[in-house]
Amino acid sequence: MAIMSIEITMLDDYAPVVVSSQMLNRQDGKDEYHVRAAAMGEGVDPRQAEAFEERVLQPQTHWASDRRMILGYRCTNSKMTIAVGADHEIQTDCAYSDLVHADEDTGKKVYRVDAEPGKPIKITKVVSYHSSRGVPVRELVDRCRRTLDRVREQGVDAQFHDQRTWLDAYWERSDVVVEGQPALQQAIRWNLFQIAQAAARAEQSGVPAKGVTGSGYSGHYFWDTEIYVLPFLIYTSPRMARSALRFRYNMLEAARRRAADLAQSGALFPWRTISGEEASAYYAAGTAQYHIDADVAFALCKYVNATDDGDFMQREGVDILVETARMWADLGFWRDGGSGDGQRTFHIHGVTGPDEYTTVVNDNLFTNVMARFNLEQAARVVRGLAQDAPQAYERMVRRLRLDPTEPDEWAAAAEATKIPYDQATGINPQDSHFLDREMWDLKNTPADKRPLLLHFHPLVIYRFQVLKQADVVLALFLQGDHFSLEQKRSDFEYYDPITTGDSTLSGVVQSIIAAEVGYRELALRYFHSSLYVDLADLHGNASDGVHVASTAGVWAALVYGFGGMRDYNGVITFDPRLPASWPRLQFKITLRDTRLRVEVTATAIMFTVEEGDEAVVSVRGDQVRVLAGEPVSVALAGQGPEITGIPTLQAGERRPDGTLITASVPQPAVRR
Amino acid sequence: MAIMSIEITMLDDYAPVVVSSQMLNRQDGKDEYHVRAAAMGEGVDPRQAEAFEERVLQPQTHWASDRRMILGYRCTNSKMTIAVGADHEIQTDCAYSDLVHADEDTGKKVYRVDAEPGKPIKITKVVSYHSSRGVPVRELVDRCRRTLDRVREQGVDAQFHDQRTWLDAYWERSDVVVEGQPALQQAIRWNLFQIAQAAARAEQSGVPAKGVTGSGYSGHYFWDTEIYVLPFLIYTSPRMARSALRFRYNMLEAARRRAADLAQSGALFPWRTISGEEASAYYAAGTAQYHIDADVAFALCKYVNATDDGDFMQREGVDILVETARMWADLGFWRDGGSGDGQRTFHIHGVTGPDEYTTVVNDNLFTNVMARFNLEQAARVVRGLAQDAPQAYERMVRRLRLDPTEPDEWAAAAEATKIPYDQATGINPQDSHFLDREMWDLKNTPADKRPLLLHFHPLVIYRFQVLKQADVVLALFLQGDHFSLEQKRSDFEYYDPITTGDSTLSGVVQSIIAAEVGYRELALRYFHSSLYVDLADLHGNASDGVHVASTAGVWAALVYGFGGMRDYNGVITFDPRLPASWPRLQFKITLRDTRLRVEVTATAIMFTVEEGDEAVVSVRGDQVRVLAGEPVSVALAGQGPEITGIPTLQAGERRPDGTLITASVPQPAVRR
Repeated sequence: MAIMSIEITMLDDYAPVVVSSQMLNRQDGKDEYHVRAAAMGEGVDPRQAEAFEERVLQPQTHWASDRRMILGYRCTNSKMTIAVGADHEIQTDCAYSDLVHADEDTGKKVYRVDAEPGKPIKITKVVSYHSSRGVPVRELVDRCRRTLDRVREQGVDAQFHDQRTWLDAYWERSDVVVEGQPALQQAIRWNLFQIAQAAARAEQSGVPAKGVTGSGYSGHYFWDTEIYVLPFLIYTSPRMARSALRFRYNMLEAARRRAADLAQSGALFPWRTISGEEASAYYAAGTAQYHIDADVAFALCKYVNATDDGDFMQREGVDILVETARMWADLGFWRDGGSGDGQRTFHIHGVTGPDEYTTVVNDNLFTNVMARFNLEQAARVVRGLAQDAPQAYERMVRRLRLDPTEPDEWAAAAEATKIPYDQATGINPQDSHFLDREMWDLKNTPADKRPLLLHFHPLVIYRFQVLKQADVVLALFLQGDHFSLEQKRSDFEYYDPITTGDSTLSGVVQSIIAAEVGYRELALRYFHSSLYVDLADLHGNASDGVHVASTAGVWAALVYGFGGMRDYNGVITFDPRLPASWPRLQFKITLRDTRLRVEVTATAIMFTVEEGDEAVVSVRGDQVRVLAGEPVSVALAGQGPEITGIPTLQAGERRPDGTLITASVPQPAVRR
Repeated sequence: MAIMSIEITMLDDYAPVVVSSQMLNRQDGKDEYHVRAAAMGEGVDPRQAEAFEERVLQPQTHWASDRRMILGYRCTNSKMTIAVGADHEIQTDCAYSDLVHADEDTGKKVYRVDAEPGKPIKITKVVSYHSSRGVPVRELVDRCRRTLDRVREQGVDAQFHDQRTWLDAYWERSDVVVEGQPALQQAIRWNLFQIAQAAARAEQSGVPAKGVTGSGYSGHYFWDTEIYVLPFLIYTSPRMARSALRFRYNMLEAARRRAADLAQSGALFPWRTISGEEASAYYAAGTAQYHIDADVAFALCKYVNATDDGDFMQREGVDILVETARMWADLGFWRDGGSGDGQRTFHIHGVTGPDEYTTVVNDNLFTNVMARFNLEQAARVVRGLAQDAPQAYERMVRRLRLDPTEPDEWAAAAEATKIPYDQATGINPQDSHFLDREMWDLKNTPADKRPLLLHFHPLVIYRFQVLKQADVVLALFLQGDHFSLEQKRSDFEYYDPITTGDSTLSGVVQSIIAAEVGYRELALRYFHSSLYVDLADLHGNASDGVHVASTAGVWAALVYGFGGMRDYNGVITFDPRLPASWPRLQFKITLRDTRLRVEVTATAIMFTVEEGDEAVVSVRGDQVRVLAGEPVSVALAGQGPEITGIPTLQAGERRPDGTLITASVPQPAVRR
């Protein structure tokens, strides 16, 4: 629902005033704001929506009365339905006439007012949208009528009041305060507000990559929800998090069909979707991102750990865990170690990690560590269910036709999952052949050749060690308990100079790991670049819509990055990295119905229970129990390691085969 | 031009007869013969033509008179033009009336005849087509008129006589005779006739993959011309070969632009084209087949070696060689050997070889040996030109802005090109990581799951050692002087059991190498499967058009395979492999204007000059000089090695890393 009003007062003269308030089906008309390429694939900006050859919305009904207009449509291909209705009201002492009109693509209310000086003209427009996967348009039209009738009865002010209440509660649970930095503070709140807008209706419609702010990515959902948005929701608005997870659960049947299409057992969630069906056209950077399965499982476990919502896990969550674990167990395969000692390793080939500048590879580190987590958790939850809730377990076994040996198979695969590591460079290669590639010299790549995806053919980019976005570095964050601080630093130093950040999903993750390993200045720089992605239009495409994942990533950079929070296996730990220029950082997290306020200063971290009874966390290894009414302060000796400067390209090192790593920029020779 | 006639005679009664002769723009109308999927990519048969969203042919003119009708069109996107005209003539003593009509998509001539018993009605239709890349339609209409006028003046019989003469000469140069096998003989001639149809107009329009026989592959050209069709034309109709090469030369400017699009120097020929521009939509199996450049260079060198056409090489050929060598020198890169001894190797990454079931790999063996050839030949020809034709050399240097050090760079790269070889299995891996893959168990793959590309998602296929078509094995044929007979046998035995032959380009090549290494029965089996590809519709898509490359491959299997001919570096050698069931194989080859008849029997090979003065060849190491009027017979001790049975899957071997190779068929688990 949306409510708009406009007020016009003539100051010093009489004049005819015409106000034409419209509902316009812009998608199918010629959109005056954008002209788009019709094709997909090479040479086209894949971040924009595709133009459509045919009408997207098929008009089903249009109707108008004196005060109300309604339009209804059905989508050509998906058969989803939508209706939109609007009521208008005018308040004025001036004389006026009005006119109403509706046709297939337009609803129009026109007021012609003989405006007099000093007499205000106020027009209020109340708009109601209802959409559905298949409910007939006439039913949606009725829903619009009921919504509009209710507003008419209760009045507009009641609506504003309700919204105010809702938002007050949202800020109470979610606000992050950086003391002494008003400009930064304003930008942080702008980002957090975007998530409220995007996630408020997560149950019905999930959280698409652009929320409902623009046509970019055609309204589709990616892993953004699970990996970027859900951590924020889990710790500030757990009910919204549950809604978003239920939205995924409702896609499980489609994911089972998709797995079968890919000759796999279990379920494979679509890389890109709006209705549950895979909608990515280029599978090397789409369907090949099998890690989406583990991303969903990851968010699910994080949610249940933070909320203790065992009910959701038993009824819905476990189905997701089992079906995704089955997919991994089937996609991966066993190989004897080659040493003849009976050791076997579990491999996953032919997948694409988060970094879309390298596609369809073997043993992508991110995929493997996330799949390992997925397999482990599925085994753990199923075994736990068998022990603690035998009836729920039996129902699940029947529902999913579970073979009792499956959890053992998952656990064994998790245990033996191949994690690429290279002795020569001392780093975790992004995949088993990543170091074979030539290295892209980003520092010497002209600014007018960035982002790379718009200036180089994919086949060129694919030949190089160059990243669109954090891949290993994201694994260091999400599965950080499996890597030592030294390893994180080595990996970060290797990947940072070849990471373009051409994806807005990259900066927040680079910021978090930069903070952890000690690149303090770089952590802040990445944070600023993420904070202003849309506000300063840093990627030149804010007009396609807000980068919702990046707005939620800003929260992650604040809480995980500078706040130093981690939540491996549901244990909440803190090891802060407060920037020297910030006197104080304050945020809230909700753990099992207890809301905790956390404040970090240069010398201490303080915990206060704002709602609920108690919470248990740990600070740099020491457990801290916080009770209602008894705030706790823990002294901090510094803010972790400090490294000056930024990592530079590590050309000059040698590959496992002994060959020298050199860097270059691909360009044709100029012949004179 | 086409001439058709129909003759009708009533036998025993009077009757009204209506003959409606039409020209119909079927592409844009609803084609009553085919219903096609509109999409591309996964789930769609990529071998068919795509359906188009909009009109392909924009009507420009239509016109009809009593005896003649003409339609003219311009293509919507390419702006290519086409006109078609037809004259009709009726010969009968019966009374008749006629009617003529033309509109945008139809030309129609209708005869209504009061047919009388015993009085023949003969209708003759002469059709002329003219097409062009850009000449206005009205000019093409004039050309149609001139063609039809000429036929009208000279009469239809003269046209048939000309065609007869042309075809007699074609068969005189091209026929292959297998004695005592009439059914085989008929099928062979059917295949050879298809090449005549497809290649007769090579100069204007090249040789598309389907000739002009159907809509498959949308009329596009691939490497089929250079690697499959040109060897036949070079040795039987060298002028047609030159025309086809000139057609490629005319695409050079577009290929330069395409190389620049890919950030490469030199020229990159399109993998799939109709006008010179790259038309492949899925670059992993399209543009990534950089080997197209070497394929063009290969055919060019073969042509010049066989014809001594130095003029063509100096004026046009050398430009192709230089620009393609530049592409390779720039695409590939140097790497120090890792041993610290200063040894360097030249690598080519991120390419796809002929086998489209494995894409975007490093150091594809086929690509590397063909690129090596390309680089070598470019250096050789440029250096030869500098020495033997200084003026032509100077013109070329100015034309191509050649740096005098370039040939040295090419020669060095050729010398150091990486050729994958694996010590453990003793084979040449298809690419540097091919053996890392799991192995597909083809033998246990149900027949209803073949061809794989129609039943498995590409991401599934990509994870396996499984081939759409000969890749290493094709290299063993085209660059066979770089591999020992033992190596060929090892490689063939490894790849044959995992080669599906889902491409019709595969069988003829497998046949040739099977024959060479001694799998005699298998060689014949592959030959038969290629011979009847279209005649028996073995791939289920003959309705999309003739597999022209396969028809020319049939010739290659006869001459190179069973005839045992090779032509490395322009030296013609013979080492026959005559099947035991064939009493005699006879074929012709034209070498530098001398046409040689070659006859192979179980005990001898005979050479006879049919036209020209002399030819020099060699038989199993001994040089043979053949003069006009002096046939030579060389005794043969057997037909090479003989191995019984067929190669079986080599699972159970170990990879370089020591891991065991096992085979499987991907399929989801069935849960009961």
